[in-house]
Amino acid sequence: MADLQETADPTAGPSKSELKKRAKALEKEKKAAEKAAKQQELAMQQASSEVDCATEFYGPLPLHQSQTRPGLPRVQISSLSARDGETVLFRARVQTSRAQGNKMVFLNLRQRADSVQALVTVTPEKVSKQMVKWTAGLADESIVLVQGIVKKSPELIKSASVGDVEVLISQLHLISGIEGRLPFTLDDASRPDTDEAVSEADGKAPQFSRVLLDTRLNNRVVDLRTQTNQAVFKLQSAIGDLFRQFLSNNGFIEIHSPKLQGAATESGASVFKVSYFKGNAFLAQSPQLAKQMAIAADFERVYEIGPVFRAEDSNTHRHLTEFMGLDLEMTIEEHYHEVMELLDGLFLSMFRGLKEKYQNEIEIVGKQFPADEFKWREGPEGTLKLTFRQAIDILVEDGVPRESLDDINTENEKRLGRLVKAKYDTDYFIIDKFPMELRPFYTMPDPEDPTLSNSYDFFMRGEEILSGAQRIHDPTLLAEKMRSKGVDPDSMKGYIDAFRMGCAPHGGGGIGLERVLMLFLKLNNIRRASMFPRDPKRLEP
Amino acid sequence: MADLQETADPTAGPSKSELKKRAKALEKEKKAAEKAAKQQELAMQQASSEVDCATEFYGPLPLHQSQTRPGLPRVQISSLSARDGETVLFRARVQTSRAQGNKMVFLNLRQRADSVQALVTVTPEKVSKQMVKWTAGLADESIVLVQGIVKKSPELIKSASVGDVEVLISQLHLISGIEGRLPFTLDDASRPDTDEAVSEADGKAPQFSRVLLDTRLNNRVVDLRTQTNQAVFKLQSAIGDLFRQFLSNNGFIEIHSPKLQGAATESGASVFKVSYFKGNAFLAQSPQLAKQMAIAADFERVYEIGPVFRAEDSNTHRHLTEFMGLDLEMTIEEHYHEVMELLDGLFLSMFRGLKEKYQNEIEIVGKQFPADEFKWREGPEGTLKLTFRQAIDILVEDGVPRESLDDINTENEKRLGRLVKAKYDTDYFIIDKFPMELRPFYTMPDPEDPTLSNSYDFFMRGEEILSGAQRIHDPTLLAEKMRSKGVDPDSMKGYIDAFRMGCAPHGGGGIGLERVLMLFLKLNNIRRASMFPRDPKRLEP
Repeated sequence: MADLQETADPTAGPSKSELKKRAKALEKEKKAAEKAAKQQELAMQQASSEVDCATEFYGPLPLHQSQTRPGLPRVQISSLSARDGETVLFRARVQTSRAQGNKMVFLNLRQRADSVQALVTVTPEKVSKQMVKWTAGLADESIVLVQGIVKKSPELIKSASVGDVEVLISQLHLISGIEGRLPFTLDDASRPDTDEAVSEADGKAPQFSRVLLDTRLNNRVVDLRTQTNQAVFKLQSAIGDLFRQFLSNNGFIEIHSPKLQGAATESGASVFKVSYFKGNAFLAQSPQLAKQMAIAADFERVYEIGPVFRAEDSNTHRHLTEFMGLDLEMTIEEHYHEVMELLDGLFLSMFRGLKEKYQNEIEIVGKQFPADEFKWREGPEGTLKLTFRQAIDILVEDGVPRESLDDINTENEKRLGRLVKAKYDTDYFIIDKFPMELRPFYTMPDPEDPTLSNSYDFFMRGEEILSGAQRIHDPTLLAEKMRSKGVDPDSMKGYIDAFRMGCAPHGGGGIGLERVLMLFLKLNNIRRASMFPRDPKRLEP
Repeated sequence: MADLQETADPTAGPSKSELKKRAKALEKEKKAAEKAAKQQELAMQQASSEVDCATEFYGPLPLHQSQTRPGLPRVQISSLSARDGETVLFRARVQTSRAQGNKMVFLNLRQRADSVQALVTVTPEKVSKQMVKWTAGLADESIVLVQGIVKKSPELIKSASVGDVEVLISQLHLISGIEGRLPFTLDDASRPDTDEAVSEADGKAPQFSRVLLDTRLNNRVVDLRTQTNQAVFKLQSAIGDLFRQFLSNNGFIEIHSPKLQGAATESGASVFKVSYFKGNAFLAQSPQLAKQMAIAADFERVYEIGPVFRAEDSNTHRHLTEFMGLDLEMTIEEHYHEVMELLDGLFLSMFRGLKEKYQNEIEIVGKQFPADEFKWREGPEGTLKLTFRQAIDILVEDGVPRESLDDINTENEKRLGRLVKAKYDTDYFIIDKFPMELRPFYTMPDPEDPTLSNSYDFFMRGEEILSGAQRIHDPTLLAEKMRSKGVDPDSMKGYIDAFRMGCAPHGGGGIGLERVLMLFLKLNNIRRASMFPRDPKRLEP
């Protein structure tokens, strides 16, 4: 099993024979390096003699920290390539350790998405046998404070993300150990998502123990430490930044609307009920009402990033009971396509930003979740925009019976995505002019054909990621549409009143942050795009 | 009453005598201007002849908009000073209208925090008597589409924020009218908060009908339209931006943690219960547990901006049941003061950013809520940092009995704020090293004196706006402290388990966004700093 791993897994450590060869070579190099580093080392030791941790060369640190503050600079693993010959100090996780006899231990040390190889080897007056033994006993995932000399490695170390150097450790202290057993190793949790397929394809038994999604989520804190997840959530943060940056540049301000509401709004069925002192409240299904009221209050262009709650008992790959909504609303001057085009500009700006600034993270995720690069149309032709009718025609042409296409279900959505990709070479497109009956009561009807509406959905890899529309700003028409959809206008008085006091024409849209992240990276399950996902069966951790 | 208003209120419109004088002067100027503007006007009319709205010079527009899209540029009122002589098109609210005989109507037109005076006056072949009559009938707060010529005004118009020009209207269309009566006028809602005090001081009856806070909040959409509130929420948005910008520059990423939790955590008493399918969930009182788990998951530095829910039945000026938490958590290298200093740097960066970039908005708010400018210490001495003991000593020195000072209550907090302001000339300071018994179970005790803790509060104008600390990262000590505070460790297994898998020393803090906004601007009630505030008695609008 171990041998199989060594050959098959690019993230596994070096083989035994490699280790022996490396050990000999290192012995030579070390002597030369020692001389050069001696002076630096001495200076460092003098400085660190004021630290509690340096009263010995190894062992546990006191719990509290926060006792002295020598201000010794600590470095990032990502910077080590440029520090050949330097004595450095840094905190890191022990991802794996492998003893080589009783005189040497190889460590793979990790910080966020970066890792480096380090070794502790018996050296007279510096590294004792006891220190090597103690090091060998460190549990995987322990957090240590490392002091050592950075050395160019003779060949690239594939098991580390910083592979051109390694660290010869002179002092090693334990900051935080492990209590009990790890639920799975980080190596196992980092294996590509295609393992099973690969092993099945070549007729061999699966080479790796895959970690199931549920096991990951039950032990999310450990799962989140993989390079992949470090990159996934850096990208999630980036999407939020890009969203805000574009909107801020386009005159929007950020608002925060209450999640506690007095009435079950929009559609009563899928709302969570909250005990609120002696009465009840309900969790907002979206900031829809609040952001429209902000428009009636003259804020002109507003956005909100906040949690959205859906009490839908569906356990699909793309539904959560709580997700992050990226919502915006803006006034219209002449035509609702102003909103649709701004939203298009927003998505293009996010896609470009991710590609330009986060290529490294995208590639890291791609190692575990292989995917064709996400494609969109640039240049004068612009984003593909279909009307609902055109989209239906494409599906009918492909053989879907027209009678089944009152709405486009999930299956047909994906089919449409594939057809569009084949024909237009894009993973991103817009469908405009949905039938009125498919949209919520606050959607503005088309001025010429009242069976249609001024509404649109946006798609990524054949799945809906934004739904939006022009909204009804006239209280009389709004009340009429509410009644026609079975909503009592009296139950939403505060909302309708906002329009009675005058409101500009407006429109907007809501984006699911986790869906954008999942579909851009092709993570295949929305739970992977949420740090601590919530679904009907999961409220922990 | 009207006359009193005119003399006393800088935001009121011009007096009747002023209007007459102005009307004569305008008649002359208009003729000269008409010639110059004629050509521009004609071009504009030709262009707009494609728009439905231009088939007449006045009247209501069709409801939907979104029918044609001529792409006529619309301008902002804030840009009008630089457009003398131009024919412009813009959408605005009618804040007030005053007819002058049956040939002229003065309008005060508003966009967000900007306003300008405009007038419709009978002009052969352009503005009919009927148009003037129709204009005079427009309800306050109607939304109109205005076409007109910008003209330098002979003297500064005090009732408008853009007072050096006015607009001679050639076309006027109604976009959205008012149904029913306004709950209060925008003029009334904009009066300074000191009215009563002023009128009491000089022995006269109050000059204005003040709009009570409850009336405002019941009709929040109208209330939010005041210049003051437009500025308040622009500043709220700015605080979020400044918070993120500083943290992003310091290596933090944004996370989103679930508000739905499986167990009532931290302190069970003040948690809202949610019906969750066949069981129950609870609303997060803070992202405390999640952000610490993000640290245990190696994200190193994280922040979150999200709603925080407190089921406390207190109706004070500074408590909401739902507010926006600006939370952060970071690893510690040597000492928890690293966190405290980063938080201090964050506040200084927010204060400086507000002062440098939003002076205009701060001044607008200051007109309605007069306040001494918020003060903090710059320069080498830095922010004032007191220990809890020193803070107590200051209060004792001022006459507060030491026996009553186990904790610092709200009253003594404010007293301390005044004493510190008098002695150190700052509205912003830090208290460090709170007694352990005043802090939650996850607070790290002081390494030398276990009755103290590695924790701090930050204050603005004598009120707490941040609470933070180093946290316990050791599962054994954490369980012990939980038991000592009456919390069953088994009830928070997912949380403790995170530390069993190894966690770096860390600390952080939580800031109340609305409190920072309220105290920086001295709004006196936190409800004014929340767009749609929630308290035990208010769930609407």
